Amino acid sequence: MEVYFDNSATTRVLDSVKDVVVKVMTEDYGNPSSRHRKGMEAEGYVRQAAAEIARTLRVKDREILFTSGGTESNNMALIGCAMANHRAGKHIISTGIEHASVYNPLAFLERQGFEVTYLSVDREGHISLEELKKAVRPDTILVSVMYVNNEVGAIEPVEEIAALVHKENPAILFHVDAIQAYGKLVIRPKKQGIDLLSVSAHKIHGPKGAGFLYIDERVKINPLLYGGGQQRDMRSGTENVPGIAGLGVAAKEMYRDHEEKIAYIADLKNYLIEKLEALEGVTVNSLRGMESAPHIVSASFEGIRGEVLLHALEDKGIYVSSGSACSSNHPAISGTLRAMGVKKELLDSTLRFSLGVFNKKEEVDYCAEALKGLLPALRRYRRG
Amino acid sequence: MEVYFDNSATTRVLDSVKDVVVKVMTEDYGNPSSRHRKGMEAEGYVRQAAAEIARTLRVKDREILFTSGGTESNNMALIGCAMANHRAGKHIISTGIEHASVYNPLAFLERQGFEVTYLSVDREGHISLEELKKAVRPDTILVSVMYVNNEVGAIEPVEEIAALVHKENPAILFHVDAIQAYGKLVIRPKKQGIDLLSVSAHKIHGPKGAGFLYIDERVKINPLLYGGGQQRDMRSGTENVPGIAGLGVAAKEMYRDHEEKIAYIADLKNYLIEKLEALEGVTVNSLRGMESAPHIVSASFEGIRGEVLLHALEDKGIYVSSGSACSSNHPAISGTLRAMGVKKELLDSTLRFSLGVFNKKEEVDYCAEALKGLLPALRRYRRG
Repeated sequence: MEVYFDNSATTRVLDSVKDVVVKVMTEDYGNPSSRHRKGMEAEGYVRQAAAEIARTLRVKDREILFTSGGTESNNMALIGCAMANHRAGKHIISTGIEHASVYNPLAFLERQGFEVTYLSVDREGHISLEELKKAVRPDTILVSVMYVNNEVGAIEPVEEIAALVHKENPAILFHVDAIQAYGKLVIRPKKQGIDLLSVSAHKIHGPKGAGFLYIDERVKINPLLYGGGQQRDMRSGTENVPGIAGLGVAAKEMYRDHEEKIAYIADLKNYLIEKLEALEGVTVNSLRGMESAPHIVSASFEGIRGEVLLHALEDKGIYVSSGSACSSNHPAISGTLRAMGVKKELLDSTLRFSLGVFNKKEEVDYCAEALKGLLPALRRYRRG
Repeated sequence: MEVYFDNSATTRVLDSVKDVVVKVMTEDYGNPSSRHRKGMEAEGYVRQAAAEIARTLRVKDREILFTSGGTESNNMALIGCAMANHRAGKHIISTGIEHASVYNPLAFLERQGFEVTYLSVDREGHISLEELKKAVRPDTILVSVMYVNNEVGAIEPVEEIAALVHKENPAILFHVDAIQAYGKLVIRPKKQGIDLLSVSAHKIHGPKGAGFLYIDERVKINPLLYGGGQQRDMRSGTENVPGIAGLGVAAKEMYRDHEEKIAYIADLKNYLIEKLEALEGVTVNSLRGMESAPHIVSASFEGIRGEVLLHALEDKGIYVSSGSACSSNHPAISGTLRAMGVKKELLDSTLRFSLGVFNKKEEVDYCAEALKGLLPALRRYRRG
């Protein structure tokens, strides 16, 4: 049995996505900038994808900017915003549990003379609105907080953050890294006060190499790439039409019968948590049901190195992720689990199981059975 | 009949490219950063593509950096080089006939305090080595010249440029925009003295959304995107594995039986030039055979607006490009045709026909027949 429980790392593309990618590569392969029919056809795919995505967020088509993926979206939001607004101030607020594609652009900006305040999180991975309020300064230009944490699935209170920040100073921009949230949660940037929102295609069964940045039409940021002036001069380069078309189809698909899809995944998650908690020496770091993201389960296995367990599961055809990846040397960035106060001895004993629409209950059973056999054996090995 | 003569704008992907893209999206869909087998498989595709590309250039695998396409490659080469070397000097040399994805990053750098000298070109679109020599200064850090001009197909003397520049000052980096050259010409960066070389996948029957930048291993430039540290920290973001794998296959394919492929395209080009020159009031702006790129024919049609002829051809299923696109407001950038001294009244009467491996002699015949009928009619219309 092959069990892919690493859907937060990347996903298999949907068949409908594959079909449109193939069609665009082999039939409707024009360049959207070409002035003839083949160019117009290609442009049509880009427009349609923007419309489909805009519909899932209830925003305007022209507020969707296509990028090469989540990392570019985050870089563009942060660096593009900082460069466009540095005259208004050089202070940015973020959190200690952001993804590397947020904290490394922030580290770059720090080297350019910007100052960043990193908010801490509580035991469940949530920031404190009080701490945020205290952090806002007259020279704060940007607040960037992830929607769903990629390691444990904690959902940050983005709506409350936006309200607080914009009440303090309506000119502060609020960026949300929604790479683990889009497709899983209902997101309404206009209602929630989100100015910029980053999304990646390959986390929602779309193709790698595509993503988008939602930019509220009133917001002005600088481009990162210069050239032929595609996408209203905000992101030059021939549009990745197959990738964009695939992203559009994936977005539409993930938000079709959305509640049912998410209930299905959340049920699987609850079932997995149940199975994990029935095992000896296992601590689940994620909240149940919709109190956290429906697809992410972080669990710590006492007395076993995560890396060892990962490969033991791999040998049984089960693919998961080590849960405490923290490649940062930045003192304010501690990794989500540490920031949450997970016991030191468990930090390296943690795995992330991330679910998707293709997963099945039998796979959870298979995984639980595998763990039941592996855990005592690995602990014995370690003691030996 | 559908005749696609716009292969310099973009190309249809090869079936072998499509096959690998589909396989990577639906079967081997892992994230190269994942530590399990599915991650390793995905990483294998990236490594293989780098190896295949490196082989076509006779360079090392680790000198190939994957990007989202030609625009990112050019931006990274120029901005990355300027940012890494600004302490050594702030002077850059380029030409007046570069693509927008070179001259717009240069314009950005000018706004950041860099100074750029733009070389002129002669009637055939070639720069003057003498003018280049005079332009080199003690504070010159970078020379960027395109290999093949995208509007007329002129081939710049990159080897001589490299020799001259590096003789003047070995520390000056030499960047070559090879987006219209790769796949068409034999390129040997090490032998030719090229430090940085930009390539796009979708110009060589690979997928849109992928490209690479060759960076000589001794050269240090800054990254543009920060994040998870992929590709040795030089280009963060989950690798576009399907795009990269497709690019690898396309590269390998274009350089297999390369001489035959290119001879075939060059024959088509000569045949097209012959047919065009047999028509009344047509001036061909490109050189024959291998004196210029084998796939590009620029032609001016006296008394007819290019845009009008483009759409008239489109009605007959023939897709070409208007040849004098010049969207720049930069005074030093005049558009290739103007820079070459093409008569003012012909600037707007120019089309580009760009050929590829899928084109056939019958298509040239069909196009020539169509033009034969259209030209007198359109001229009459204009006079009327």
